[in-house]
Amino acid sequence: MLDAALAQLVQHGYDSMSIDVVAERSGVHRTTVYRRWRDVGGLLVDVLDEASDDAWRPPDTGSLEGDLVAVNHEVYAALTANPVTVALIAASFRSEQAAEALRAFWADRYDRCADIARRAAERGEIPAGTDARRLLIAATAPLYHELVLLRAAADAHLPELVARSAATAARAGAFTDR
Amino acid sequence: MLDAALAQLVQHGYDSMSIDVVAERSGVHRTTVYRRWRDVGGLLVDVLDEASDDAWRPPDTGSLEGDLVAVNHEVYAALTANPVTVALIAASFRSEQAAEALRAFWADRYDRCADIARRAAERGEIPAGTDARRLLIAATAPLYHELVLLRAAADAHLPELVARSAATAARAGAFTDR
Repeated sequence: MLDAALAQLVQHGYDSMSIDVVAERSGVHRTTVYRRWRDVGGLLVDVLDEASDDAWRPPDTGSLEGDLVAVNHEVYAALTANPVTVALIAASFRSEQAAEALRAFWADRYDRCADIARRAAERGEIPAGTDARRLLIAATAPLYHELVLLRAAADAHLPELVARSAATAARAGAFTDR
Repeated sequence: MLDAALAQLVQHGYDSMSIDVVAERSGVHRTTVYRRWRDVGGLLVDVLDEASDDAWRPPDTGSLEGDLVAVNHEVYAALTANPVTVALIAASFRSEQAAEALRAFWADRYDRCADIARRAAERGEIPAGTDARRLLIAATAPLYHELVLLRAAADAHLPELVARSAATAARAGAFTDR
């Protein structure tokens, strides 16, 4: 069922999604599908849940810059090689549930990534009191901006370039004030 | 016509847009409307064109940080007080023409904002060779990320906080490498 929903979303977009279409595609009886998911929004929430890796831990390369580069390579791959993320972002503008699911997904990732900032501060790379969430957003938002909103051509240097800028900023204390 | 299209987009979203609906709303005969705009995408392009201010020039406050804070207050207002921008971003996931129009709009703004980096370099605030576009994206992308993708609650400190981080990063040379 979730595989069928995911395939439908990726191939034909949010517009094409309906419980009936997904039921037909998966060969499951539509009554069963309706019982489990009230609507497409609920289905998308489970698709995102299925697609996210619960065992995910932030990279630990030994340096802030290395960690941020590794995170950004993952984000870059999610935005260029895998159509699910962008399809879900597009759906989030049309389904409150999809928006909430994406927000929860990102909130969880920012929480897990707090270790990156904590370790960097312990190593003395960045000031204590660096705001981990702001650092992570500074390190990743330009990738989303370029690839999702500006629809820039894929540029394999981008993940590293953006990560290095964020690491430089963090070392200079850019994320300690409030 | 464009006012009617804009009102329809803001009140009922991209889904509700059709040449017929906009014609009816504006009281213009639909044949006339079809002659001018082939489809909703074309209409959106003109809506964005109308909504953007051709006389816009980047702020010139005398410091990099002041300029970036001023830019970010404009971005913040566009994303919180004015529903047009977010409606157009949402539409860009469903209309190639809307996506292209937004991209052209942002490209134009980045071009104009190159003066901010040039003046800062002339004042000796940031290294010569700072990439103006990367600096501008670092200064604005977290705002889009928080308000459009993460749908964070409006936070009036955000524009200044993000601008200050980007200015600190630029002074530390975060946007000079390639």
